Amino acid sequence: MGPKPLGPVAIVGVGLMGGSLGRALVAAGARVVGVDPDPAVARDAVTLGALTDVAASVPEALDGASVAFVGAPIGVIDGVLREVLDAAPEDCVVSDLGSAKAGIVDGVPQRHRQRFVGGHPICGGERSGVGAGRPDMFRGATWFLTPTPEVRPAMFQRLHSHIQAVGARPVAIDAEVHDRLMALVSHVPHVLASALVDQGAATTPAGREALRSAGPSFADLTRVAGSNPPLWADIFLANRDALLDALRDYRGRIEEVERHLAAADRGALEQFVARAAQGRERLRRDWADPDGRAWRLVVSVPNRPGVLSEIVTALGHAHVNIEDLALHQSSPEGGELHLTVVGGDTASDAEARVRGLGYAVSRFDAAEAPEGG
Amino acid sequence: MGPKPLGPVAIVGVGLMGGSLGRALVAAGARVVGVDPDPAVARDAVTLGALTDVAASVPEALDGASVAFVGAPIGVIDGVLREVLDAAPEDCVVSDLGSAKAGIVDGVPQRHRQRFVGGHPICGGERSGVGAGRPDMFRGATWFLTPTPEVRPAMFQRLHSHIQAVGARPVAIDAEVHDRLMALVSHVPHVLASALVDQGAATTPAGREALRSAGPSFADLTRVAGSNPPLWADIFLANRDALLDALRDYRGRIEEVERHLAAADRGALEQFVARAAQGRERLRRDWADPDGRAWRLVVSVPNRPGVLSEIVTALGHAHVNIEDLALHQSSPEGGELHLTVVGGDTASDAEARVRGLGYAVSRFDAAEAPEGG
Repeated sequence: MGPKPLGPVAIVGVGLMGGSLGRALVAAGARVVGVDPDPAVARDAVTLGALTDVAASVPEALDGASVAFVGAPIGVIDGVLREVLDAAPEDCVVSDLGSAKAGIVDGVPQRHRQRFVGGHPICGGERSGVGAGRPDMFRGATWFLTPTPEVRPAMFQRLHSHIQAVGARPVAIDAEVHDRLMALVSHVPHVLASALVDQGAATTPAGREALRSAGPSFADLTRVAGSNPPLWADIFLANRDALLDALRDYRGRIEEVERHLAAADRGALEQFVARAAQGRERLRRDWADPDGRAWRLVVSVPNRPGVLSEIVTALGHAHVNIEDLALHQSSPEGGELHLTVVGGDTASDAEARVRGLGYAVSRFDAAEAPEGG
Repeated sequence: MGPKPLGPVAIVGVGLMGGSLGRALVAAGARVVGVDPDPAVARDAVTLGALTDVAASVPEALDGASVAFVGAPIGVIDGVLREVLDAAPEDCVVSDLGSAKAGIVDGVPQRHRQRFVGGHPICGGERSGVGAGRPDMFRGATWFLTPTPEVRPAMFQRLHSHIQAVGARPVAIDAEVHDRLMALVSHVPHVLASALVDQGAATTPAGREALRSAGPSFADLTRVAGSNPPLWADIFLANRDALLDALRDYRGRIEEVERHLAAADRGALEQFVARAAQGRERLRRDWADPDGRAWRLVVSVPNRPGVLSEIVTALGHAHVNIEDLALHQSSPEGGELHLTVVGGDTASDAEARVRGLGYAVSRFDAAEAPEGG
């Protein structure tokens, strides 16, 4: 299979993320039409190569689009997304870039669900605005997608290939699972860093300021603290339930350390740090499968809603990266889903998981596999 | 005043910190005699240029020393320090490099207090051992000193100039104040980072591992997590009271964020992040006094115990860096303390604070100031 055709793409909201995505898609050869509440921003985006065309309104931007990305800030995303879904052509897949997903996905009306897939690329920058964007921002980044059972497979497939075209790795995931993960790896760390800086600023024993006694590692540890207060207040609220759960859990872990300290339990303190050392090892680990061969899994799938989202989400939860994905309808009753994965162990794992869901699956060396279709 | 004579220096415990200090002092021209529980380590240290001579025992290392540094790990520092104090010549100033101070200082017997000053350089590295040491480790670093009223001024002065000789900034501070600051800027952050990694490792919603869903900023934020479990268990215990207080305070701050979240109080969440932004600004701020002139303060001091430690500790608490310090005894009743500070505002602040303690003080342009004594 050669590269799949891209676009035309509509980008609604051309800030740091939307603008970087536009740059990457323009560089990949797509026509990218953008619209922003500030018309000057959209015009700048053309100059910067982040858009090929500017639209004066959301409906104009969506006219003829085959893929639409909503790049609005999370605090206003629901309203903008509704506007985009109402304006988008029947055959246009719509996604967003918001950093919490369950609330957004739940808010999409049933009639739009067949062509909506929530999305969240795990990348970004400290500065905001289209001028701070970079076309390579998505290269190698995980890009979470939260397909619901209602989404049409062709829509998911098209979005998947656009995300791969900008160098990211699409990973399907349940929206609630996504939000719990993000609470832990992004939102809790922001709260912790801000609370730490705040405590430092508030503590001046004998007049000596804690923040002026910090070494360079304190500055590294609190790098994210205090970034963009209105945006982060909205992110925290958008992921309120998962963040509350994670903060309560976290607080319990601190209390446990306090108990070990109060009891002067050296062994327990050492174990606490040693467990973290094991966790750090997992963070640093290179997960690439040493067998770098590409394998194609051919899955027989019935023609009923939810099959694709079920399979790709199960593989996403299991850390199986899908390098390529294509659905070939062979009859009104069903067809074949072709999934390409890299590495022998990864392929075996993927095969077992898909079979575990009740589907017949065959495995081929991708270099020799049938093209299907 | 030209450079003051250095050493001979004894270093007891030649690990990362002791070894780096040795390298820096050897480079500055001092004779540095070292001893380590592992004789091979001390021999390696000579090869690496971290010592000029190896001693077979603590008394042998201390023989003829004018300054001694205890570089033992904090878990065993009290015993080693006692051994060093017992062996040190009457005219040898003894210090340590431990990262908590009140417990160590309190444990020094009264008879040794006139020549002991607790110390803690704010620098280090991720690896341990003499091989990981660097002679420039102390350059520009704050080096906390905790002089008690009993310390002889000449002892403090000699230690001060040795610390300056390796490029560090000696800052006098009360031991309890030091421990509260370190709890906040070093020990709490270690606990937080380890707890965060631990929570990440323990959380796998739908089988998806949180740690494998983290972006690069999570890795940065948790860089210190899990480092050297036995050492950090000892550090936590050595600063148990201050760390417990700081963790409880911290936990209260997280609870406050939870309340704002539960109440969906966007304004309060935004304020929380904005306060952290102000704190980050203070961290980043360049505190150098724009007037780069050196000023000498000449303080008339009576010849009674505690005067020097009182003055330098008050200036340390007030963030006044003392660039140079010399005590000139002019009569049995007292003499002059000469303090050099940089910047006109800094000099005015220092002058006012010393006068506020009840001492007569005069200020001179350092280029024209009397040499005294």
